Amino acid sequence: MTTRKTPKGQKPNFFQGSKKRGAQRQKTAKSGSELSDRDSWLYGDHAVLAALDNPDRKIKRFLVTESKLQHVMEAHPGLIKNPSMAEIVSNDDLRDLLPEHAIHQGLALKANPLREYDIEDIPSFQNNEGYSTVAILDQVTDPHNVGAILRSAAAFEIDALILPERHSPPITGVLARSASGAVETVPLVRVNNLARALDKLADMGYWRIGLDGRADQQLDQTIKSAEKIALILGSEGKGLRRLTEEKCDLMGKLPISPKIESLNVSNAAAISFYEVAKSRLN
Amino acid sequence: MTTRKTPKGQKPNFFQGSKKRGAQRQKTAKSGSELSDRDSWLYGDHAVLAALDNPDRKIKRFLVTESKLQHVMEAHPGLIKNPSMAEIVSNDDLRDLLPEHAIHQGLALKANPLREYDIEDIPSFQNNEGYSTVAILDQVTDPHNVGAILRSAAAFEIDALILPERHSPPITGVLARSASGAVETVPLVRVNNLARALDKLADMGYWRIGLDGRADQQLDQTIKSAEKIALILGSEGKGLRRLTEEKCDLMGKLPISPKIESLNVSNAAAISFYEVAKSRLN
Repeated sequence: MTTRKTPKGQKPNFFQGSKKRGAQRQKTAKSGSELSDRDSWLYGDHAVLAALDNPDRKIKRFLVTESKLQHVMEAHPGLIKNPSMAEIVSNDDLRDLLPEHAIHQGLALKANPLREYDIEDIPSFQNNEGYSTVAILDQVTDPHNVGAILRSAAAFEIDALILPERHSPPITGVLARSASGAVETVPLVRVNNLARALDKLADMGYWRIGLDGRADQQLDQTIKSAEKIALILGSEGKGLRRLTEEKCDLMGKLPISPKIESLNVSNAAAISFYEVAKSRLN
Repeated sequence: MTTRKTPKGQKPNFFQGSKKRGAQRQKTAKSGSELSDRDSWLYGDHAVLAALDNPDRKIKRFLVTESKLQHVMEAHPGLIKNPSMAEIVSNDDLRDLLPEHAIHQGLALKANPLREYDIEDIPSFQNNEGYSTVAILDQVTDPHNVGAILRSAAAFEIDALILPERHSPPITGVLARSASGAVETVPLVRVNNLARALDKLADMGYWRIGLDGRADQQLDQTIKSAEKIALILGSEGKGLRRLTEEKCDLMGKLPISPKIESLNVSNAAAISFYEVAKSRLN
């Protein structure tokens, strides 16, 4: 897909003449993976504004309603470095372009994907006087959950989020919206083989703690005094896979009622991140 | 909408002759509020199985795919008290009937709404040796979030969830699915006037703690030694309304990074519930 150029000073009208045609089911190669055009956008206030604010993003297209553009330029002066690249569209245009029920709040953006890291890059993210926490998601696939976990990871200063290459949703759309800007700040590490990645984390000095309702110890007991912690969260329902569990140094649980099977994985992640952050404040 | 009766012993075929007709945009009066037919269903494993297991539910209709019915009857013997009431449908039938993108997992159920309570009923839910926690949502409208909060409320044994009558989503569909069965177990209290409800909670001896990122104290400092706690959570973005804040005895915050504005409200709720539950274990 080529980027539509808008002559400077002329009010752009993105969909002119091609409404409904360009946006549907086009495929565009994105860093090796096939992502439909509809699924390759960032949208919603926090996701788009944080991407605009990230110097590592090369903005390809920025679609915005007229009133929203005015609002953004007033509320965040200087954020839009090149106002002429904004393509003024209607809410209907955005609805046609984006996935159904996308809560776009009047703006959408397409940019180069952010760099993803290898497990060997992790030491370069550590910055808290010897302390480090990373989180590993073992087959968590729901983009709402992965996004919300990224947001909590940013909130509690997790150094990196580690995801398996397979079964992980793209870092756009509903995931980026749930992350509320945190896709721009939390380093993502993609690994081919989770068991091997867990070995490498042990070599780096990480204490690998799996979260599991069947554990004997409470989570807060497992994290005491560990300087480097790798928190491992499994998929909802199935929990941690046996192979993943075998790589854990300790298993911890949260004190939930026996009447309920489990917490939502993003809530379990938020509590775990909070617990680790708190243990380091004391 | 009349309930379709299925003769006992005969394999029911719900959509016969009326496919696509009955399900669309019908309105049915539900406890005073208008809820479209499409929005009045429970669906998904946990939501439906928990409703089937709840003696307070009068099941009006139970739609299930043939393989799912077999699976449920094997995995949960006795749960379906009256197997002949199950209407065998296809996945396509369910897709036509339910809201778009509903993750139904092969089953849907319509039942009488559960009883909702008044603020005066709260003392009857208290059961933990003098301790009690209730949660109040001030204009949290996203059904995913309200559902996830209900699930965490069940996990951490919150005695009741208090919602304003207005701006609250129906307790079906995506909310019930996110709640993962917890709509059946956590008492819901509906209030007309939140400020007055907060006055009444004070009369009942509750310490009213508002969660707000601008608070001076950390949340865990505010809850020390309080026997009865009412946790108040505001909408994302806007936070607590001024009138609500004025009714709080204390404000508490979570130790999040200054780089991020806020947590997702369901994650903030999960952490708060966890923190209160933990303070009572010590």
